[in-house]
Amino acid sequence: MSNMGLSEKLREEVDSIWQAIFKHPFLVEMSKGVLPMKKFRFYVRQDYLYLTDFCRALAVAEGKIQDVKDLKDFTAFLYKEIALEIGGLERYAESIGVSTKQLSKSNYAPVTYAYTRHVLYSAYADPFSCFLSLIMPCMQLYLEIAKKIGDEEGIKKIPAYSKWLATYQTKEYADLVDWLNRLLNKYSQGSSQWEISRMRTLYLTSSRYEYMFWDMAYKLEGWRI
Amino acid sequence: MSNMGLSEKLREEVDSIWQAIFKHPFLVEMSKGVLPMKKFRFYVRQDYLYLTDFCRALAVAEGKIQDVKDLKDFTAFLYKEIALEIGGLERYAESIGVSTKQLSKSNYAPVTYAYTRHVLYSAYADPFSCFLSLIMPCMQLYLEIAKKIGDEEGIKKIPAYSKWLATYQTKEYADLVDWLNRLLNKYSQGSSQWEISRMRTLYLTSSRYEYMFWDMAYKLEGWRI
Amino acid sequence: MSNMGLSEKLREEVDSIWQAIFKHPFLVEMSKGVLPMKKFRFYVRQDYLYLTDFCRALAVAEGKIQDVKDLKDFTAFLYKEIALEIGGLERYAESIGVSTKQLSKSNYAPVTYAYTRHVLYSAYADPFSCFLSLIMPCMQLYLEIAKKIGDEEGIKKIPAYSKWLATYQTKEYADLVDWLNRLLNKYSQGSSQWEISRMRTLYLTSSRYEYMFWDMAYKLEGWRI
Amino acid sequence: MSNMGLSEKLREEVDSIWQAIFKHPFLVEMSKGVLPMKKFRFYVRQDYLYLTDFCRALAVAEGKIQDVKDLKDFTAFLYKEIALEIGGLERYAESIGVSTKQLSKSNYAPVTYAYTRHVLYSAYADPFSCFLSLIMPCMQLYLEIAKKIGDEEGIKKIPAYSKWLATYQTKEYADLVDWLNRLLNKYSQGSSQWEISRMRTLYLTSSRYEYMFWDMAYKLEGWRI
Repeated sequence: MSNMGLSEKLREEVDSIWQAIFKHPFLVEMSKGVLPMKKFRFYVRQDYLYLTDFCRALAVAEGKIQDVKDLKDFTAFLYKEIALEIGGLERYAESIGVSTKQLSKSNYAPVTYAYTRHVLYSAYADPFSCFLSLIMPCMQLYLEIAKKIGDEEGIKKIPAYSKWLATYQTKEYADLVDWLNRLLNKYSQGSSQWEISRMRTLYLTSSRYEYMFWDMAYKLEGWRI
Repeated sequence: MSNMGLSEKLREEVDSIWQAIFKHPFLVEMSKGVLPMKKFRFYVRQDYLYLTDFCRALAVAEGKIQDVKDLKDFTAFLYKEIALEIGGLERYAESIGVSTKQLSKSNYAPVTYAYTRHVLYSAYADPFSCFLSLIMPCMQLYLEIAKKIGDEEGIKKIPAYSKWLATYQTKEYADLVDWLNRLLNKYSQGSSQWEISRMRTLYLTSSRYEYMFWDMAYKLEGWRI
Repeated sequence: MSNMGLSEKLREEVDSIWQAIFKHPFLVEMSKGVLPMKKFRFYVRQDYLYLTDFCRALAVAEGKIQDVKDLKDFTAFLYKEIALEIGGLERYAESIGVSTKQLSKSNYAPVTYAYTRHVLYSAYADPFSCFLSLIMPCMQLYLEIAKKIGDEEGIKKIPAYSKWLATYQTKEYADLVDWLNRLLNKYSQGSSQWEISRMRTLYLTSSRYEYMFWDMAYKLEGWRI
Repeated sequence: MSNMGLSEKLREEVDSIWQAIFKHPFLVEMSKGVLPMKKFRFYVRQDYLYLTDFCRALAVAEGKIQDVKDLKDFTAFLYKEIALEIGGLERYAESIGVSTKQLSKSNYAPVTYAYTRHVLYSAYADPFSCFLSLIMPCMQLYLEIAKKIGDEEGIKKIPAYSKWLATYQTKEYADLVDWLNRLLNKYSQGSSQWEISRMRTLYLTSSRYEYMFWDMAYKLEGWRI
């Protein structure tokens, strides 16, 4: 237990939320191949807004990295895994009937807006260690989801879904998540109590937003007013 | 019509949202003196979290003011109307049975968290003109609420409510809102199309959050998970 | 020695630079009442640029204060000691023949520009503890200068100089510096090694800029090109 | 004349400074192959500090890009031209006898420190258009230097110098500068008067710092104190 890295402890603390995500009708129906495409398209359009803001936030946070090797690695991550992935998502969306023009005209649903403000604000105001904690749930959750439902028969029947999930089933993606977890553990070494406490709050809040994101997509949720 | 300042146009565009706020059960029940104190206490605790983050955000945004007179005026506003108001709210909360210790231990409800991230992120990333547009709904709405329900018989029967509202019924508060509207109009002079468009989006989004804030308090709304 | 607060240690480490400041011809000639007014006016104009940027930087850094009491106190400091002091400097400059209009048209000398970028960038990017370390030399040095040369016969003969110095001879100013030193010690509790090391570098760099600022004024130094 | 893009106008306004750079002994001696290697090594070590801070600043500024295509392109620029270039500079420095370990232990000379604070602060506080104006002199100057002295006999005799200069003699580098100039012109469309004025000041100040950077290296200039 005491040998556990901080990243594992953070993951453990929010396990009940993650289990609720795995059992959410959006993912269950997807794994059975019965999720209505309309809900998935809604998800993809919101995910595009999320991904572009995620790219902006990661860039801002990169400005705080002092170690030159980490600075170079993080820029490679930003380019290869995020910026190129924006293009990948555009092409994928096209394949399920959502044009890049439509993507660029999407409006933020309230959960997407709240989640991205959470990410963007932290990129400016928090220490880099805390920002890493905030982004981990997003990165790690997709790895776990891919493991959980990637081999389900249902999802294999729907090429649109299995193709989408394939992004998170590669060794490259697993290595990326592993690298980020190690980075988190490294940057949290010697952290003050306040910093550790802040990391836990941010990890928890991102986990909640991940749940709400799937829930929003399932409910095609718009603004209350 | 063409003589209208931008601040008036922005206000007009969101009128349907503001009318919905005026008719929201939280305010209607308050004006009749029948709003359960439990809901009001919930509101006050969240408002405290909002106000302290508002103070932080205003400070960050102040860093972008180039004009020295505006810089001095804005600092006076930050101190006299915001920082001192934090103390005022602490004393007021005490009078309705919420100690400062309790205030400081309050957790963000989801709407409060989302609204404050919206404010804080913009303080860092947006031009000052846009940030002013974002904060106007909060400042102006309370002036209009005070005018709408301040003279209702019901509210006068509940000293806790009428005392709370009195803050927004002073000439000083009206002058403050007036000054901020003039500042907004001044800083939007010569703005690019993008800037004007961004100001409209931020004014709209803050108006939505204002509605959601009352709605959250009325429903004692916590996190979905 | 081990009982020393961090602020005292930081001060001790840069003592040779501070001694060089105390012996700099600008201050020596001022203390003797023989500093040419032209050099002092140059100093005042650059100090005005410094003070307004200092106000902006303090505001930005304030956005990172989590503790509500400190947030309120810092806003009071920003208003009472900085924003009001801008007005004070305007009136003082007027009394030595530099109008507010002239002040507002001053161009940054290179040292002023470099020093203010140092302050402003740190306000955005560094933890609050580090920013406090960066601003201490500026705040504390004037207290020590006032003690060193305040009672010199020469300076008393030149009302313009003794009036200027009087600002830093008040109990209020000493209390302010004391409060900031205590704040620095408080915020450095439990800091990581990196943070302590960064604080030392920033304290040193600000001390160097303080020396360079007097030196620049004495030499009426402009841009190399 | 009226057809000139803003980037050309900005360049024209600072021409006297750029001519002084071209005539600076550092570059003249380099073009003749007589620049002492000691001065060049000093330059390379400071340039490494500059380049890593430049990478951080570009990342921070990227966070403000709204247009998704520009966001993707800018990330590619950050990775391919800046982050990879850091590695390139490390290998190059090794070849002239400066190890990566030495590079990482270099201390900021005062001009390097001032110039990088200028870049980093602007990345946080200025609109993206203004930040682009600030970085143009750095990017464009090296293109012009390469054209001016790249074919000189003297420089060809010193492989260390001609190899260093070769980076800026590629079509790829010329295309990059061209793309940045077009981006600057695009982002300055519809700018307010304040923004244009700010762009001019930043372009001028960066040009001054470029001059001072060569001058500092030639003089092996350290801190005054």
